Amino acid sequence: MNPEVRIGLLGLGTVGSGVLKIYRANRAGLEEKAGCRLTFAAVADKDLTSPRAGLTLSEWPLIGDAAKVLNDPKVQVVVELIGGLEPARSFILRALAKGKHVVTANKALVATHGRELFEEARRQGVLLGFEAAVAGGVPIIRALKDGLAANRILSLYGIVNGTSNYILSKMTDEGREVAEVLREAQAKGYAEADPTLDVEGIDSAHKLQILASLAFRTPVDLKEIHTEGIAGVTAQEIAYARELGYRIKLLAIAKAQGGALEVRVHPTMIPADVPLAAVSGVFNAIFVSGDAVGDQMFYGRGAGQMPTASAVWSDIIEIARRLAAGYPALPQDLPVVGGSPMRLRPMEEIRSAYYLRVMALDKPGVLSQVAGVLGRHDISIASVIQKGREEAAAVPVVMMTHEARERDMREALAEIDRLAVVAGRTVMIRVEGGA
Amino acid sequence: MNPEVRIGLLGLGTVGSGVLKIYRANRAGLEEKAGCRLTFAAVADKDLTSPRAGLTLSEWPLIGDAAKVLNDPKVQVVVELIGGLEPARSFILRALAKGKHVVTANKALVATHGRELFEEARRQGVLLGFEAAVAGGVPIIRALKDGLAANRILSLYGIVNGTSNYILSKMTDEGREVAEVLREAQAKGYAEADPTLDVEGIDSAHKLQILASLAFRTPVDLKEIHTEGIAGVTAQEIAYARELGYRIKLLAIAKAQGGALEVRVHPTMIPADVPLAAVSGVFNAIFVSGDAVGDQMFYGRGAGQMPTASAVWSDIIEIARRLAAGYPALPQDLPVVGGSPMRLRPMEEIRSAYYLRVMALDKPGVLSQVAGVLGRHDISIASVIQKGREEAAAVPVVMMTHEARERDMREALAEIDRLAVVAGRTVMIRVEGGA
Repeated sequence: MNPEVRIGLLGLGTVGSGVLKIYRANRAGLEEKAGCRLTFAAVADKDLTSPRAGLTLSEWPLIGDAAKVLNDPKVQVVVELIGGLEPARSFILRALAKGKHVVTANKALVATHGRELFEEARRQGVLLGFEAAVAGGVPIIRALKDGLAANRILSLYGIVNGTSNYILSKMTDEGREVAEVLREAQAKGYAEADPTLDVEGIDSAHKLQILASLAFRTPVDLKEIHTEGIAGVTAQEIAYARELGYRIKLLAIAKAQGGALEVRVHPTMIPADVPLAAVSGVFNAIFVSGDAVGDQMFYGRGAGQMPTASAVWSDIIEIARRLAAGYPALPQDLPVVGGSPMRLRPMEEIRSAYYLRVMALDKPGVLSQVAGVLGRHDISIASVIQKGREEAAAVPVVMMTHEARERDMREALAEIDRLAVVAGRTVMIRVEGGA
Repeated sequence: MNPEVRIGLLGLGTVGSGVLKIYRANRAGLEEKAGCRLTFAAVADKDLTSPRAGLTLSEWPLIGDAAKVLNDPKVQVVVELIGGLEPARSFILRALAKGKHVVTANKALVATHGRELFEEARRQGVLLGFEAAVAGGVPIIRALKDGLAANRILSLYGIVNGTSNYILSKMTDEGREVAEVLREAQAKGYAEADPTLDVEGIDSAHKLQILASLAFRTPVDLKEIHTEGIAGVTAQEIAYARELGYRIKLLAIAKAQGGALEVRVHPTMIPADVPLAAVSGVFNAIFVSGDAVGDQMFYGRGAGQMPTASAVWSDIIEIARRLAAGYPALPQDLPVVGGSPMRLRPMEEIRSAYYLRVMALDKPGVLSQVAGVLGRHDISIASVIQKGREEAAAVPVVMMTHEARERDMREALAEIDRLAVVAGRTVMIRVEGGA
């Protein structure tokens, strides 16, 4: 029995401070659950002087050099909360190489270099916890790894970027446009000064890479995830969606069908009465379908200091339990890639229903021309709303299609936009009914 | 390394058949996740001849005598799916005493005799898995034990009885009465021939006992859970609730406040736009608030053959992993009761907002008399809807109160019902806003 587990923390930013705050507030509870004493051997950050709200810096063993933590033989668990690809990747690899267990909240890193990191952890017989990398405090990694272990996962739909969901929720509630709501979110600190990762769907793609690899036990290359953000979503589309009984959400989607896996992130219309449609503001949710359990949803705060720190601690506690009991890591503790990797279905081959808004010059025969193009590409129309004549030169024709192939839709759209009766580019949003 | 883990199954009813069906369909996946071979040494049931849909009985090592499974030294994991208190309790105690790990889906048993069973498991150094006892395939037990381990749980609200939720959902959607919907549910097989456990809230109380003990790490005696079912909910209350922007759900509630814990099951009005309000039909959901993670919700099918069997397998896999690696159980694997048990708050001391429907004789001064009684008991009214005069002798006066003490409310109701201007018993439903 090891009576004490020593932790080295890399990065005393927002989440790192949260990890120490939870320790300060609830150390006895953490130690009781871990079954051992928990101590911080070192807390490394380049900035050792700026105050951290809620923490007394002098109480902690601060050092300026992360390398010292990695080289300290007393440190058994390294918690990486620096973020970004480098030097986080090198630090984690060095920690693993020295036989230290690692906990990280770094979604970009796990999504980009996860295989390399997990292979090294496996070689060293140590654990690499990443519960905090997806959906903050929501224990979705454990659910996929353990809770749903008896299931073949059929599909997974996630609202996994709080910033995008906050912006879309505000647009829906207040009829405002992306740019305006984004500026407000930045002013309030809900969006970064550089919001690219969030609003362009890249952060959602990182999380989808992690979730899909784990759920489907197959390698997923980040570059193969079709990724669109919310920048192109307008207040008008949101209003039409509502009229049709739908909501627009930025979804991270992974679906297994016929031995192939599709992975994509894009604004998606979902029926207003499904559970995911009710997930608003900065909340995250992951909807999972398994062959035995059926539909499940996990909902909670997807980011923020304390929810993310809570997930970090869940991993530290699991590792400390093992260390205290002298149980080495098992192969099953790390994400396993199954025997036969799945083919990733190219975006052009996916099938989906579609919402279209065609801007038509108000002349007779527009609808028949548009419907004709769609029909020639094997796309049938489920419903049409032709908006009344306005003063404007062009009027919107809104339609929902039945399920069609993406390649056919793209070809049809190119043709539609070349029609003489069509003014401007047709707006297309994919529709998911099952979510 | 143990290359094979041998399972003994007690009870080949609905869930037991599901456990075998998952094994038949996905054995390779289960074994890969467990890290060992999994075999059934024996499947015991009194009925060895009735066909089980989807199973070929001759493929399985059926025996008629459960004692043989308990005495078989080769059986390492006993899966108890008999249900009921006896002989299930004795069987489990015998299995534990022989050093076998146990998995059970038996909520009534865990709620009633959990402490005894967990103590015996602790003494023997074996695991006792009960993920399947609450909310079917939803991995809520793991979430409370591991995923949220860094949190002090502040409150927990569960829709944990699918039959009651199905009935209330139907009543809400179709404006029908309990008795009629219940008869239909029985005809469709969604409700038992004897629906007492479900509609009287007893099944929900069982699950609350399990969840609250685990979340708050304190002993909770089933008898101390205030339990009301849905039998008294009328279509009229549901309609008024809707008018006020609420839904009525049968909630299992546990809340920690000022060192005391309140545990209660009763029909509850919740705002129509909170996530729990959207949980309809046979689905279950558990809404948990933790001091670090904030609000979380876990949603899924709360019962049924395959979801419950999926949860049983998640426990078998966890146990098999340990057995294969030679890792004995840890004290933290079983529910731990903290050092200082919490006081259970008597129902009369709880505070809640209330919905009241007073049947008033249509005479001047009714409202002032009722408000006077409430005021004398420290209860203030938040809003009133006085329904228009109808032909009937009595008209409903519907009101929502601010938060008040239950004892005061009970005393006030007794007085109100004695007023000469009041006809019949006043209907009272508690209101929760935070859920």
